[in-house]
Amino acid sequence: MPDLRIAVVGAGLMGADHIIRISSRIVGAVVSAVVEPDENRAKAALANLPSAKWFSNIEEALQASAMDAVLIATPGQFHESVLIPALAANLPILCEKPLTPDSSSALRVVAAEMATGRNLVQVGFMRRFDSGYMQLRELIVSKNQGELLGLHCAHRNPTVPESYHNDMLIFDSVVHEIDVVRFLTDSPIASVEVRHFKRNSKSPVHLNEPILVMLETESGVLAVVEMNVSAQFGYQVRTEAIFEEGLAEIGRTSGMLTNFSAKISMDENMSFKPRFAAAYDSQIQRWVNAAKAGKIDGPSAWDGYLAAAAVEAGLEALRSGKKVPAAYQPMPAFYQVS
Amino acid sequence: MPDLRIAVVGAGLMGADHIIRISSRIVGAVVSAVVEPDENRAKAALANLPSAKWFSNIEEALQASAMDAVLIATPGQFHESVLIPALAANLPILCEKPLTPDSSSALRVVAAEMATGRNLVQVGFMRRFDSGYMQLRELIVSKNQGELLGLHCAHRNPTVPESYHNDMLIFDSVVHEIDVVRFLTDSPIASVEVRHFKRNSKSPVHLNEPILVMLETESGVLAVVEMNVSAQFGYQVRTEAIFEEGLAEIGRTSGMLTNFSAKISMDENMSFKPRFAAAYDSQIQRWVNAAKAGKIDGPSAWDGYLAAAAVEAGLEALRSGKKVPAAYQPMPAFYQVS
Amino acid sequence: MPDLRIAVVGAGLMGADHIIRISSRIVGAVVSAVVEPDENRAKAALANLPSAKWFSNIEEALQASAMDAVLIATPGQFHESVLIPALAANLPILCEKPLTPDSSSALRVVAAEMATGRNLVQVGFMRRFDSGYMQLRELIVSKNQGELLGLHCAHRNPTVPESYHNDMLIFDSVVHEIDVVRFLTDSPIASVEVRHFKRNSKSPVHLNEPILVMLETESGVLAVVEMNVSAQFGYQVRTEAIFEEGLAEIGRTSGMLTNFSAKISMDENMSFKPRFAAAYDSQIQRWVNAAKAGKIDGPSAWDGYLAAAAVEAGLEALRSGKKVPAAYQPMPAFYQVS
Amino acid sequence: MPDLRIAVVGAGLMGADHIIRISSRIVGAVVSAVVEPDENRAKAALANLPSAKWFSNIEEALQASAMDAVLIATPGQFHESVLIPALAANLPILCEKPLTPDSSSALRVVAAEMATGRNLVQVGFMRRFDSGYMQLRELIVSKNQGELLGLHCAHRNPTVPESYHNDMLIFDSVVHEIDVVRFLTDSPIASVEVRHFKRNSKSPVHLNEPILVMLETESGVLAVVEMNVSAQFGYQVRTEAIFEEGLAEIGRTSGMLTNFSAKISMDENMSFKPRFAAAYDSQIQRWVNAAKAGKIDGPSAWDGYLAAAAVEAGLEALRSGKKVPAAYQPMPAFYQVS
Repeated sequence: MPDLRIAVVGAGLMGADHIIRISSRIVGAVVSAVVEPDENRAKAALANLPSAKWFSNIEEALQASAMDAVLIATPGQFHESVLIPALAANLPILCEKPLTPDSSSALRVVAAEMATGRNLVQVGFMRRFDSGYMQLRELIVSKNQGELLGLHCAHRNPTVPESYHNDMLIFDSVVHEIDVVRFLTDSPIASVEVRHFKRNSKSPVHLNEPILVMLETESGVLAVVEMNVSAQFGYQVRTEAIFEEGLAEIGRTSGMLTNFSAKISMDENMSFKPRFAAAYDSQIQRWVNAAKAGKIDGPSAWDGYLAAAAVEAGLEALRSGKKVPAAYQPMPAFYQVS
Repeated sequence: MPDLRIAVVGAGLMGADHIIRISSRIVGAVVSAVVEPDENRAKAALANLPSAKWFSNIEEALQASAMDAVLIATPGQFHESVLIPALAANLPILCEKPLTPDSSSALRVVAAEMATGRNLVQVGFMRRFDSGYMQLRELIVSKNQGELLGLHCAHRNPTVPESYHNDMLIFDSVVHEIDVVRFLTDSPIASVEVRHFKRNSKSPVHLNEPILVMLETESGVLAVVEMNVSAQFGYQVRTEAIFEEGLAEIGRTSGMLTNFSAKISMDENMSFKPRFAAAYDSQIQRWVNAAKAGKIDGPSAWDGYLAAAAVEAGLEALRSGKKVPAAYQPMPAFYQVS
Repeated sequence: MPDLRIAVVGAGLMGADHIIRISSRIVGAVVSAVVEPDENRAKAALANLPSAKWFSNIEEALQASAMDAVLIATPGQFHESVLIPALAANLPILCEKPLTPDSSSALRVVAAEMATGRNLVQVGFMRRFDSGYMQLRELIVSKNQGELLGLHCAHRNPTVPESYHNDMLIFDSVVHEIDVVRFLTDSPIASVEVRHFKRNSKSPVHLNEPILVMLETESGVLAVVEMNVSAQFGYQVRTEAIFEEGLAEIGRTSGMLTNFSAKISMDENMSFKPRFAAAYDSQIQRWVNAAKAGKIDGPSAWDGYLAAAAVEAGLEALRSGKKVPAAYQPMPAFYQVS
Repeated sequence: MPDLRIAVVGAGLMGADHIIRISSRIVGAVVSAVVEPDENRAKAALANLPSAKWFSNIEEALQASAMDAVLIATPGQFHESVLIPALAANLPILCEKPLTPDSSSALRVVAAEMATGRNLVQVGFMRRFDSGYMQLRELIVSKNQGELLGLHCAHRNPTVPESYHNDMLIFDSVVHEIDVVRFLTDSPIASVEVRHFKRNSKSPVHLNEPILVMLETESGVLAVVEMNVSAQFGYQVRTEAIFEEGLAEIGRTSGMLTNFSAKISMDENMSFKPRFAAAYDSQIQRWVNAAKAGKIDGPSAWDGYLAAAAVEAGLEALRSGKKVPAAYQPMPAFYQVS
């Protein structure tokens, strides 16, 4: 079978990373096009891709039949305008999270996908491809330690850029937990509540964090999330699951242990890249394999919509200090997993 | 200096344990009297104490001048009736937590102690003597990792007896975190809030737990406590502290590591006794040393009152689901640490 | 650049594994031929490779120009008869360890390679591609903890098949440490000595193990190897390095931590496959990339010869109980790394 | 029962430490005499012991009936001259290791003790009182993981004083492993062999270390000891036991885990004092309890003799590079444990 020709839309940090990934680590796929309005960025990304072409917008790329599939790596507010024409062209799409910035635009994407009659959109919640989360999900499903009762989640970034603003705590960061809590529990987020830890004086002046976010699922599981974007010491994503008969914990660093200067130490990650490198690779490889077979193999556009709706509850919870219920449209039969 | 003659009041589980501790591991002290209305219990406790005497109530023991100091190990509702006469006799007292079951009785004890003109009462919040908590406090005070922002506390019992009822989640169990959070932060608990994890079907039928308790200090630190008394797998008390520049974690089990049957394992404790054995020994040894010098060396009656007042807020929070502020009397100069 | 067409020689356990690896995880390569005398095995391996051809011997495959490169995965005693004609055809070769079973045959391969004028042979000592060994080597080279003084190596298999005989402790198992100790120290093995632990009654009757193997490098580093092929509980390859100022340790299992039934546990591997999966992938990807550029990127035929010569000393040490020096030919300029 | 009056002989580092231990942490004992020729040292040690008396030699102390029991903490070459008169006086003795510097003097002590008709001498191999070694011994005896096959021991000091000379590697340091290997295996050391790691340039100039010591027991267990007295980074005593079906490991540091500056770290000990503090306390408390009952509760003079004889083999092994068998007198019935 010929290689899947992928157009990568957006050649910023994330897009450039995906271009290198596809070229050097993904089997059966090739970057055939880079869609990017900024010419310098585009040229930098194309440097080692002699056979790939540059397009400044998605319409031109579609016009040129430059790809078999689309990987969207632009900021979230620009996703809809790429998704709609790519869906109209019946192309398989891997769209970085969030699907779109709010639930009403997410529902428009859902409608456009349903109009094609096929599952074409996969959303890039890559934690579902992390071996830790996969093991934990297996343990939950097995009920070997009884029912899952709760989750302690910690999501820590050493720092964030100046452009990171307060609402992003929810829609850019906690959105990962919003998706993964549902993935682990197979139950939608029913409500969101936010509390504040003492403010970190090292946080950018416009942020009030770290925060504590409580996500309650419809099944009654309470997930308690520490969201901390000025943790300084390292990048950590950890989860401890409380079962009726025991605990399980994922996300601890491993690696070389050194004994030096009266300390026994291990290195901690300083960015999401080493922490989730294998998950990103696995996500894209499985999407490529699935796309060739006309399928998706990961979270759907409906998952993207559910996350967007829970994020809206989360933003209101952040502002109000109240427990805010999440409201969802009924799931179309189209998205029912057989 | 002659041995400190201690009257142990209450020869139940806890009292019997303290009698063995004093006899076999504490230097400079001797159990001279056991005050216990139940004759069988008293006799069992006195079996290896040929020189100790039995009294069925505190008044008789005081009348007989049978001791230099009093260790109270009865249930909390009986503490006041021992504390008042022992204070009237000007004896040093180590009183198991809680000082008394509510803040108004605690204030009566405070008044009785102030009337003696001396600090005679120490309350048995033994976690303050655990090396882990002591190390963590040193790190907080040092500000080596910046300000403390928050605490994740887990307090897990494998099971509890049938007699354990729902309010005991707060006044018998979380009371330890209520005291130790203040010990760590040097700031009183300002408010308490309670949420529920999914109920453990293995919990006794009259309990609704595990619960999540949020303790906010006046200094703005948020402590998030998982209180779980049906954890089945083991006894665990762990704390993870979030600082501006890093984390610190205490309470992990250590011990022999075995590699057997495709698992690398360590034993977990199954009760508070091995977990806090060294803390109990240290607490009593330091109290004995201090009592001989006419001092206390640990939490005071005022600390007992503050805990009782915060527990009252916690009980209301448990029932109401609301954030409940704690209210305290102003601290008398008598209890100011110079 | 077109995909590298690889002929896999030998479709046993190891060969079949490499065929799956190349097909599903290696970028820029394809299995174009399977060389295997056993027709059933060959057909099983070819099942998912519609475009690959079957050859019963290397000569026919070469005759048909069926490949750009050769991956040899037959037992060691059959390597030479594949290596010689493949070298005569000037093809890049990845040869599973050992290069050949003894030093004289290894020298014949070396001579045949030198006759081509190019470095065509890479030997499959895949531990050099394991991230743990690579990190440890970096630390050694950096001298951040001073000079390396010694190594404690443990190499444990749960069990071995009946066909595994006593000499294989050295030439099949310890050969990995023989190569990796040189890789870590950049110094040849100067001598080998063997001692016996108490015999494991669970070992196959014809084995006398576990054994302790001492490898001394010319630079004076002493590597102490526990070689244990009936360890039952799991598969473990660990190394602890002693430096002048500290220690470093690699090879500990990580993964999900469970707290269950009074134990805190992690799963241990039960075979080399999960332990070294990433190293095998990396080895083959880097070899494919190098082969396309006319190079090797890993241990050379000369490394294979050095290991064979040290294995000969090891076998004599196993039999004699004595310290046996290893003897090496001088290294041809051809193999000098510039 | 009255307190056991102990004469501490030797008020150097070790003696001073024992004096503090007995005064502040041991129940039922008191330091009644300090035997020390150096007046300044003696006075320093007596500073906080108002009721203890100073004697410049053991004979005067015995003459004055100044004690019920003797704790010997002088250097090993001075032990015999204290042991003999103290035995003649029928006093219980705890003698720091080694019992005496060689096997013939040890046999003289054995004879003197047998002449009293009672077990009066206990030797201070305090590792037998360490909870890790005790747990490991229980596991060995239980045969839960099958027979014990071997031991990997690491004994690391950060540095040693200038006065530490090369033979002390064996008689002062490895002697601990010599005793504890026998304690764990219940089998005498049959032979000793020594190898050298690369020399640490940070070692004092007259030392050639770290060394590798192989102790083979009569039962066939091989113990492999890394003896390292210039490890710089910390003080470590670790043992890993190889069983037929699994492994067990003791001696890893535990304690507060910090996450700071891209490292996850724990403090390592820098001296034997924190590592073995609990073992020393337990040893002395159990000896005091036993002495009051006319018994010993730990290694006997015969254990001291066996260690001395194995040390002699070790010293010859260190000098010769050969495997040296240890030779022992037959054990007198007097020392048979019923």
